[in-house]
Amino acid sequence: MVANNERFEFQTQHLIDIINKTEAYVVGLQLPEGLKRKSIDIASKLEQSTCVEVIVSANPCYGACDIDTDILDDVDILFHFGHSELDDCKYNEKIYYIKAASEINISEIVKQAMENIKAYRVGVLTTVQHVHKLEEVRKIIESCSRECIIQKGDTRIAYPGQVLGCNFSSAEIDECDEYLYIGSGEFHPVGVAVATGKPVMVADPFMDKTYYVDPSRILRQRSAVIAKSLDSSTFGILVSSKIGQYRMELAKYLKNLAKKHGKKAYILTMDRVTSDQLLQFKVDAFVNTACPRIAIDDVGHFPSPMLTPQEFEIVLGERKWEKLVFDEIRGVQ
Amino acid sequence: MVANNERFEFQTQHLIDIINKTEAYVVGLQLPEGLKRKSIDIASKLEQSTCVEVIVSANPCYGACDIDTDILDDVDILFHFGHSELDDCKYNEKIYYIKAASEINISEIVKQAMENIKAYRVGVLTTVQHVHKLEEVRKIIESCSRECIIQKGDTRIAYPGQVLGCNFSSAEIDECDEYLYIGSGEFHPVGVAVATGKPVMVADPFMDKTYYVDPSRILRQRSAVIAKSLDSSTFGILVSSKIGQYRMELAKYLKNLAKKHGKKAYILTMDRVTSDQLLQFKVDAFVNTACPRIAIDDVGHFPSPMLTPQEFEIVLGERKWEKLVFDEIRGVQ
Repeated sequence: MVANNERFEFQTQHLIDIINKTEAYVVGLQLPEGLKRKSIDIASKLEQSTCVEVIVSANPCYGACDIDTDILDDVDILFHFGHSELDDCKYNEKIYYIKAASEINISEIVKQAMENIKAYRVGVLTTVQHVHKLEEVRKIIESCSRECIIQKGDTRIAYPGQVLGCNFSSAEIDECDEYLYIGSGEFHPVGVAVATGKPVMVADPFMDKTYYVDPSRILRQRSAVIAKSLDSSTFGILVSSKIGQYRMELAKYLKNLAKKHGKKAYILTMDRVTSDQLLQFKVDAFVNTACPRIAIDDVGHFPSPMLTPQEFEIVLGERKWEKLVFDEIRGVQ
Repeated sequence: MVANNERFEFQTQHLIDIINKTEAYVVGLQLPEGLKRKSIDIASKLEQSTCVEVIVSANPCYGACDIDTDILDDVDILFHFGHSELDDCKYNEKIYYIKAASEINISEIVKQAMENIKAYRVGVLTTVQHVHKLEEVRKIIESCSRECIIQKGDTRIAYPGQVLGCNFSSAEIDECDEYLYIGSGEFHPVGVAVATGKPVMVADPFMDKTYYVDPSRILRQRSAVIAKSLDSSTFGILVSSKIGQYRMELAKYLKNLAKKHGKKAYILTMDRVTSDQLLQFKVDAFVNTACPRIAIDDVGHFPSPMLTPQEFEIVLGERKWEKLVFDEIRGVQ
């Protein structure tokens, strides 16, 4: 996801080059929520500079998992901004992924972070809008006489060192001692801390601060959700139809697991998981197989407790409580 | 749309018969918002009585225009409840339309209405949940020594006398003097009054009251929206991707019309039109080609005025103000 206050380079000339190369006549634009208000400016520029007709996707968009598949029937090509392609769900050759590279300077905040990192082998992680700065980060870390490790993730991860809200596979580096996460928000670094059990330092260039994440608050919340669901007998298992979030097989596995334990479970499919829609379903708890962030970011906002698949396994006694991890949507390593 | 407080017959045995006949293994359920909370009961009954696996659509659903097309990939058949088929967008042979016939008694309220109707030729209109009672209504009207006219609409209308929120074609009866509408809510009868210019008496069996509709309040609101948009220079033209609401050709026509008048217009596509999503687009006014009820029912709830296509024509000077009608989505007569 992209913060509202970032400055971005939209590469208008690059868009025009693609339009000319593909001879597209109708062009779709899909921008994530944090950038969506730029849609009309971009549409206006493209219609003025070329002969194309532009159609703008107004559906909410939170990631490359969330391609507007309906608009593809209306357009020759679709520019999807702000996210990198998820290789494992390459949907359609009409889609061009346009990076919204952040122009913010990160070197000062990385230097500041390095003053507090004592570990020798530092694994570096960030989101797609800063990946073009990682070689600069490597130089800073090596100039501090440390080893810098920037590792490729699985097939859902386009760039070395990149993490998604649903995928920390770039952080599976056995030999590193500590992680440095560059970006804003706690979700990604907390996920890395839970997944790896190692310290994660955040260098936040927007807030201009550095700190070690403390996953204990979120883990306490998750334990409370699990505890509340232990006596539940009826579950609603949520499946999103979004192309990069669709996990029907997992949902069916969980439904069978529930049955094995004498519980009732119903599969509920939807595009976007919202608390309003869930009000319609009287179940004791929900199990969310859609975007793994939803259960955690929106904890307490749903009409019944919402578990991740791994937490549901704990509720059913199929997984040990100590084995609690964040849910991820993984590609192939 | 279906009121929350209605009692319905869900025809469980009919569903089981269809399952047996089609040998379906995976069955989808789609219920409209007013009935959605029954989904899990129905799923539970079907899974107990047959060998099927049920998948429930949790997406919002407001009409037969609003088929959950994503769920069709996951199921052998889909039961779509509470709406009749729109012939002009017959989507898929997997879909079975299950009427949710209302059990409420309507004869008393119709008799009460007839005491106040002085006209001789009475056109009768209602929504799908009461159409099975129209022969009973005919008898009551004829027993009052009046002529009862129940006319078939265009191809979007499944039953004689039926109206939709977006289609009053069953009310195009030149020879009738007055209309009797059976149902709750003002939208349908006001639409009929505006479309025909004739008096419309409502017989509301839920509120147990009868009254003539007065379209003047809604027409004043519409005039205010038009007036506010006269100086607008940038428009967002909304297109829904819902199968029965998709009017891209109309949107392109309107965009060209705007251009002809020196105005800027951008086509914005989305599944469901919500005020939250429209906040992202800074335009002077919206023009809605999706469900015709949205601009009218939710007037004042959008970040900029929302016009219907006909109102946009008035704004551009392409239609006379006196020719204002409700927007409809018509089939073939």
